[in-house]
Amino acid sequence: MSFDLKIYLENKQKLVNAALERYLPPIQDPTRNLVDSMRYSLFAGGKRLRPILCLGAVETLGEDPELCLPVACALEMIHTYSLIHDDLPAMDDDDLRRGKPTNHKIFGEAMAILAGDGLLTEAFYLLSKFGLNDLIRPTKLIEIIKIISNAAGWRGMVGGQTIDMESEGKQIEPSLLELMHSCKTGALITASVESGAVAAGADEEKREALVNYGRHFGMAFQITDDLLDVTGNSEEMGKPAGSDEARNKSTFPALYGLEKTREMATFHVNKALEALEQFDDRATPLRELVKYLLKRRK
Amino acid sequence: MSFDLKIYLENKQKLVNAALERYLPPIQDPTRNLVDSMRYSLFAGGKRLRPILCLGAVETLGEDPELCLPVACALEMIHTYSLIHDDLPAMDDDDLRRGKPTNHKIFGEAMAILAGDGLLTEAFYLLSKFGLNDLIRPTKLIEIIKIISNAAGWRGMVGGQTIDMESEGKQIEPSLLELMHSCKTGALITASVESGAVAAGADEEKREALVNYGRHFGMAFQITDDLLDVTGNSEEMGKPAGSDEARNKSTFPALYGLEKTREMATFHVNKALEALEQFDDRATPLRELVKYLLKRRK
Repeated sequence: MSFDLKIYLENKQKLVNAALERYLPPIQDPTRNLVDSMRYSLFAGGKRLRPILCLGAVETLGEDPELCLPVACALEMIHTYSLIHDDLPAMDDDDLRRGKPTNHKIFGEAMAILAGDGLLTEAFYLLSKFGLNDLIRPTKLIEIIKIISNAAGWRGMVGGQTIDMESEGKQIEPSLLELMHSCKTGALITASVESGAVAAGADEEKREALVNYGRHFGMAFQITDDLLDVTGNSEEMGKPAGSDEARNKSTFPALYGLEKTREMATFHVNKALEALEQFDDRATPLRELVKYLLKRRK
Repeated sequence: MSFDLKIYLENKQKLVNAALERYLPPIQDPTRNLVDSMRYSLFAGGKRLRPILCLGAVETLGEDPELCLPVACALEMIHTYSLIHDDLPAMDDDDLRRGKPTNHKIFGEAMAILAGDGLLTEAFYLLSKFGLNDLIRPTKLIEIIKIISNAAGWRGMVGGQTIDMESEGKQIEPSLLELMHSCKTGALITASVESGAVAAGADEEKREALVNYGRHFGMAFQITDDLLDVTGNSEEMGKPAGSDEARNKSTFPALYGLEKTREMATFHVNKALEALEQFDDRATPLRELVKYLLKRRK
């Protein structure tokens, strides 16, 4: 039976979107604008990559991915909050995100800060309120909260954004560029896979293998993101191509050139595939997903 | 044996400060500035009111408060993050907090946003990494995470700050003013007492009594805060007196006048004391703490 990644992604996106809609429905006054602002960014057309990686890890281990939806949705809320705050005037000052006006362009700066804060906090509420079930028992859920908060905080994503901010307009060392990306995007991507692994009850060896997959996926994702910024089409990406260069950001193509950067992307994709060697066909979605990075257009 | 609130508070502050220092020590590069910025606000001389309320609830129920230090410190991190974000130029645009320059005045706006994000995330890391022990078992810890994230997010603190932002310069109804405060400051104060109650294994009746205490404490705290802004001394408070009026903020004195506002403060203090009636002498710290609100100078 052949596997169709496009259909797989569409189905999983629908599943995640429906769950997010259940977990964060619109509300009435007095804080309607806040929740509208949170929902605006949450439903702005994200690919749901982190939730899908989490659910894919659960499937790889033969468990029911639906039992991991609260974890998957919490990851997407954290990812969305980070985009809202990164786009703020004091940070990257971006006007467009996924082809739409950024949150603060619509709701104003104060509300965008609060919407980000609200989504980050809601992720932990969601985990603690809806996370427990027959698959995810209390000790596992606490382990998952630890993995996610570790990856999202100063040791991970927030730390990576700090390095990014402090490096703007500077020539940075390749090792710092790698560290920045492994914190800024890699940590939460790896945590997505790892939290799925823990939810599904992976033993140490399988968990380690999936963490390795996540690390190389994260690197391949960031490298292909940098490549797209150089070679991509603004319309397809929903943001201006060449924006990294315009902003004088350090990127892999700037440091290594296009050819070497493409080789690096392939290297990490192969390493991610290697990490999955011990798994059977149930790892097909994770395998196809990382291979797809080399063909991505947005 | 007489109870000395001043000494009690000093001892508890020392305990909390030492724990915070253990949980968030300074670090070296590359994200040193981020952690320095988080620590700057965390150690800027806060009264540690929320941690002390949490520990006081544990003592009231006869358990060892030290086992609840991770919860207490998580509450303080969340409170501190909210102050950093509230002070931002896009929000209240405050230059001084507790007599010192606000976070963004020292570290810049981008870092202040990230420091807030970092502290909020770290609170949940702290809970999941260090929260479990002989007193706080996994199911309890998840309940505590739920209480805190519920109170800190859009249903609580972030929602209250939204109402505050949207009401600035407007005459608001007394009911909305009460709702704003019960969300903005009341929710986390109540969650502090409630999480201590859950940690100490309170039954439904005792938990409900302590939640009631927390609610009235929160109202009395906010009302006396408004009173201080009118009648207080800038030097003692560490921020300019009269700043609410200057900013055209709705306050209890503005809506009700000074005399009626003082009566309201006394009413809530008495209600908080009533809520503690079923407890023995171990509730003395909570009792003295709420009575002290009527005498506070900062």
